Amino acid sequence: MSSPVSCDSLWSGAAFVTMKEGQYQTIENGALAVLHGKIIWLGPKDAMPEIIAAEHHHFDGGIVTPGFIDCHTHLVFGGDRSAEFEKRLNGVSYAQIAAEGGGIISTVRATRTASEDELLASARQRLKHLLAEGVTTVEIKSGYGLDIDNEIKMLRVIRRLGEQEPVEIYATCLAAHAIPPEFSGDADAWIDVVCEQLLPRVAQEKLADAVDAFCEHLAFNPLQTAKVFTTARDLGLPVKLHAEQLSALAGSSLAASFNALSADHLEYATEEDAKAMAASNTVAVLLPGAFYLLREKQRPPVEAFRQYGVPMAVASDANPGTSPALSLRLMLNMACTLFGLTPEEALAGVTFHAAQALGIQASHGSLEEGKIANFVHWPVARPAELVYWLGGQLPCTVVYEGVRRESSL
Amino acid sequence: MSSPVSCDSLWSGAAFVTMKEGQYQTIENGALAVLHGKIIWLGPKDAMPEIIAAEHHHFDGGIVTPGFIDCHTHLVFGGDRSAEFEKRLNGVSYAQIAAEGGGIISTVRATRTASEDELLASARQRLKHLLAEGVTTVEIKSGYGLDIDNEIKMLRVIRRLGEQEPVEIYATCLAAHAIPPEFSGDADAWIDVVCEQLLPRVAQEKLADAVDAFCEHLAFNPLQTAKVFTTARDLGLPVKLHAEQLSALAGSSLAASFNALSADHLEYATEEDAKAMAASNTVAVLLPGAFYLLREKQRPPVEAFRQYGVPMAVASDANPGTSPALSLRLMLNMACTLFGLTPEEALAGVTFHAAQALGIQASHGSLEEGKIANFVHWPVARPAELVYWLGGQLPCTVVYEGVRRESSL
Ligand SMILES: [Zn+2]
Ligand SMILES: [Zn+2]
Repeated sequence: MSSPVSCDSLWSGAAFVTMKEGQYQTIENGALAVLHGKIIWLGPKDAMPEIIAAEHHHFDGGIVTPGFIDCHTHLVFGGDRSAEFEKRLNGVSYAQIAAEGGGIISTVRATRTASEDELLASARQRLKHLLAEGVTTVEIKSGYGLDIDNEIKMLRVIRRLGEQEPVEIYATCLAAHAIPPEFSGDADAWIDVVCEQLLPRVAQEKLADAVDAFCEHLAFNPLQTAKVFTTARDLGLPVKLHAEQLSALAGSSLAASFNALSADHLEYATEEDAKAMAASNTVAVLLPGAFYLLREKQRPPVEAFRQYGVPMAVASDANPGTSPALSLRLMLNMACTLFGLTPEEALAGVTFHAAQALGIQASHGSLEEGKIANFVHWPVARPAELVYWLGGQLPCTVVYEGVRRESSL
Repeated sequence: MSSPVSCDSLWSGAAFVTMKEGQYQTIENGALAVLHGKIIWLGPKDAMPEIIAAEHHHFDGGIVTPGFIDCHTHLVFGGDRSAEFEKRLNGVSYAQIAAEGGGIISTVRATRTASEDELLASARQRLKHLLAEGVTTVEIKSGYGLDIDNEIKMLRVIRRLGEQEPVEIYATCLAAHAIPPEFSGDADAWIDVVCEQLLPRVAQEKLADAVDAFCEHLAFNPLQTAKVFTTARDLGLPVKLHAEQLSALAGSSLAASFNALSADHLEYATEEDAKAMAASNTVAVLLPGAFYLLREKQRPPVEAFRQYGVPMAVASDANPGTSPALSLRLMLNMACTLFGLTPEEALAGVTFHAAQALGIQASHGSLEEGKIANFVHWPVARPAELVYWLGGQLPCTVVYEGVRRESSL
């Protein structure tokens, strides 16, 4: 850029924590130029070429990070489970709660009963909490409909959310989340419906960007999971998996063999799983909110992930049962405190590696020329502060596709 | 009230969760009348006498709780310890960090260096996070000055905060927080300074409402603690204690023998301690933030506190080292998830029992006629939601001394 370049906006006066390659790679006293929603120049202000900017925004110190990416949520659901949460703490057993119609089935019931508009309205409220803390991209899964019409309904709501709110949303079909009550004792039959009827329709109507399943004793076995994955592959949809949350079934290795975008939870993943994931570049998505709420003891094998070079992402897993999380920043603290990630790894987990978990690493996840201009200004001295402060809503300025996003909470 | 009564404001259209006696005691479709900053009538709207209100505020559903009381914080401090937090997660040992001047001593150094105005400004930012979530009363301790001038400076800052912000602040002198570097190896000598010089001056200048100490192997022993307590009693100041956080020294029993307002932390408290606290009506203040951050395993004896009728409060312990907490609501979730409190107990812990921990139960902590009109409206269906949602800043309307408080974050 030797002759003057025009841009829509120029941002300076802060340290730019680029998160390139998943590392801070901070540019002190940086400047960032945006044209048509993309970063066209980024570097030290001193080294900036001649740029003619329509707008110049000068921060008074602080840091700028990439927009946060929450790559694993179940934000769309009917009802909530606060009453059940309270019952459990009052000593009512899981068995008793299940006998009273509680648990995931109560969410399925409430989700089926709710209209698209009702689901949209309640999800939007929860989404706004995430956005208020710097989230610019969110993945949302279906999986509480558990019949064809209601899974489609959920996916439509997810698509509409993305059209209505200033945030990019990726939809995942998680029809293989739990065995529908109508298929109790016959999981295979539901998997047949999913593979033969639901997924082809989802693919045709372009209602999902990926396909997910829950591989666990109480849900679907590896064989059923493989059937879902094979169908997804034939339909051209990438896959990901809820794996090794409560036991070791080698679901993450299975996912890796399908070149899954990610395997998620992973408390019981083994060294073999880590090797398989590394070989297929499958991201390990860590979900400390559920680990915390369920008071789990077994931590995911972070050391093995480091050793074999498995990229680690961190997500909210926002859901009404095991992680009613409204804050991705809190998940950063929990990933460090509970799983031993470093603050840099945790931040990479909601930026660079979260983008990879969604397959959008070419355009998202770091501050680099050519990538989308999604970034957040925080009035803090160093990036570790975003992880260190426990709760509370740190104020921030969010720039989404090059434009300052207004708070709407 | 048989003839019409005048009031300044009338609030209705919500369920009033009074927290009387530490229980929900909810008034569905209630109404609350305020005169001169106090509640003069509260009951079901249907049963309301004729009231002439200068202002009538009608909520559109939701619940109203008493204003939250954070009865244990260290909100005033210089610097922060995010860099140290990051070092530890990168594998630097506590010993190495201490050798590099880290730990509490680094906070003491930064606090001594900071001016009153600087301490005030940084504490105000942190305080605003608490206020944004419905806190109307906060206790703040000194304890990072650790010499006479700097302890006085901290207490002055605490007093000024209370004058400048729309929140009631109680100041506690915690000069016996740690052994000052100048008194290394001679804790007794510092306790002499505290008892003979500092506390008399604090009492005379009315800079504190209570006196606290840290009874632990690395801090002060029970004999030194008793000396501080005796001095406080002679000066007419109530006492409280950091006790049984890391080991069992019967500090809480000692505190009870001085009719302490509260004993705080208590992970290692025994059944004997619980009995002693019950007999003196000493509140057990539980601090799950530090428990969480330090990854402690030993939980406070909640069952014993229930059995003997020890009131339990919950507080943020906001401090730069072991609980950089900016959210009291998150502490409610942690008190339930990590310590097994019920949501009702947790909410009592930041209202009714927190008031008792500050000795202000006659005027604060529940929605009752004659008490101060500090209350919060939350657009949620049931009180357990305040505990259930994990992180995120639930929107709320705060009424402080009968007047709607403007958000200032
Ligand atoms: Zn999930
Ligand atoms: Zn403390």
